[in-house]
Amino acid sequence: MSVATHVDVPSGSPARVDTPAPGDPRLERLSLNQKTTDRWSLAEAVAGCAEAGIPALGVWREPVADVGTTTAARMVADAGLRVSSVCRGGFFTVADAAGRRAALDENRRALDEAAVLGAPCLVLVPGGLPGDRDLRGARARAAEAVEALVPHALEVGVRLAIEPMHPIFAADRGVVSTLGQALDMAEPLPADAVGVVVDTFHVWWEPGVEEQILRAADRIASYQVCEWITPLPADTLLSRGMMGDGHIDFAHLTSLVSAAGYAGDVEVEIFNADVWAADGRDVVATLARRYVELVEPHL
Amino acid sequence: MSVATHVDVPSGSPARVDTPAPGDPRLERLSLNQKTTDRWSLAEAVAGCAEAGIPALGVWREPVADVGTTTAARMVADAGLRVSSVCRGGFFTVADAAGRRAALDENRRALDEAAVLGAPCLVLVPGGLPGDRDLRGARARAAEAVEALVPHALEVGVRLAIEPMHPIFAADRGVVSTLGQALDMAEPLPADAVGVVVDTFHVWWEPGVEEQILRAADRIASYQVCEWITPLPADTLLSRGMMGDGHIDFAHLTSLVSAAGYAGDVEVEIFNADVWAADGRDVVATLARRYVELVEPHL
Repeated sequence: MSVATHVDVPSGSPARVDTPAPGDPRLERLSLNQKTTDRWSLAEAVAGCAEAGIPALGVWREPVADVGTTTAARMVADAGLRVSSVCRGGFFTVADAAGRRAALDENRRALDEAAVLGAPCLVLVPGGLPGDRDLRGARARAAEAVEALVPHALEVGVRLAIEPMHPIFAADRGVVSTLGQALDMAEPLPADAVGVVVDTFHVWWEPGVEEQILRAADRIASYQVCEWITPLPADTLLSRGMMGDGHIDFAHLTSLVSAAGYAGDVEVEIFNADVWAADGRDVVATLARRYVELVEPHL
Repeated sequence: MSVATHVDVPSGSPARVDTPAPGDPRLERLSLNQKTTDRWSLAEAVAGCAEAGIPALGVWREPVADVGTTTAARMVADAGLRVSSVCRGGFFTVADAAGRRAALDENRRALDEAAVLGAPCLVLVPGGLPGDRDLRGARARAAEAVEALVPHALEVGVRLAIEPMHPIFAADRGVVSTLGQALDMAEPLPADAVGVVVDTFHVWWEPGVEEQILRAADRIASYQVCEWITPLPADTLLSRGMMGDGHIDFAHLTSLVSAAGYAGDVEVEIFNADVWAADGRDVVATLARRYVELVEPHL
């Protein structure tokens, strides 16, 4: 391997591998989740992916709405890219019936948008406690909401992808806390309608995660990679790191996801103030290097 | 209930119940973990408990060492108090054999000190990753270390209490992440030598925690209460709150611990910069009020 000529962000260390060029077969399954380059518009993200040779994009609803769903779909297709997922649906743990109906309606609209975009799945962030302390109740409402969305998901051909979230978010963002729990919710429902997200940041610590990933098998609707770093940044929502800067064994988890039969895109989704402050092209180059070094060899 | 005449710290809100007086039977099982009044010396903590009518103290090794173990034991007994636990042993996930031997020796000394203090248990904080990414390896070493300490624990009559820690600490402090996992470690070993800590902050989010607490039964060596608050304070180590200020259903968890058969002390252990900055006597009065309001009725 030749000497690296780049510097990684946000670590500032010399890259250990060269930046893969567009067309490099190692990039075939790489996807940029838009949140990683949070300051980029959809047009900038599409251009950034095309320039870097990243073939897929995980889009967020807000920047898609800025241009309109049909236009967004055309922008992605015109650049020769595909949409790997739409972020995000969910947030259906509200306690009152009117709020729950509104959340279901919003999720049906998100499914419609995902269908227009040709996305295989809609990522569901379950939502947190609605101001009370009834965690079991909130979890039950999340399960009921997913079930209620199944007919619409089947109708439009987009899979619901339940995202188990690190317990750090159990109170305020995601009451589904383990991959095992997400699979318990998904399994009674049709596999072509309901899957799960395996996000390394959220599940790396889970006892028995190995068995759960293999159990997940064709329920894995999305594989997302980012890093657990310490000390944890002050804002927990922005506490995710670039692969290689922390404690997660990407070889181990990626091998398991691969052994489980997952053949889809691998999204890099990093919420981090330092990453967001860096130039988008540098971030994309860094994540491509880290991906081909740490993740892709184990797919 | 009469009008409260106090203000709670750190929230600054009026207390909802009166401060229980010394001798109040509702205080019979309350214990102050020394860490909650971190600026107090052992002598101050002993005096503070005696003044407030709190009959038990969860001690830390460092302030005990400041006066010597025998003197510490006498100070506690002379004040008519008891030691509910010693914090802390553990930290045995180091990778090299010499480091592991040193950790075991240190834990045997901690067990000896706990015996002198008349403590029923030594709280074990397992330790984090030793610089690598082998979480399963670290977990296996933690389990081996607990097993290696069993003969000494039986000899001195002090129980090893494995503390599962919130996954936020899995990388840098505690690789045992769920009560279920702690019980898997404990169950092959003698129940009078190895138990677990149920700490509400660490386990409140765990899917199936109800079943795990009931499964724990006489393995529960210590019940600790403190709160999960949001937004999480910037320093995650100091992110614990006063009961009632956050998201945990203390009635629910306390009822389960009681139904599991636990009849020991209930320690209030709060790592929080605002709590530490407050006057120790105000902190103790506040926690006594919150305890009789939120925890004690469910024991």
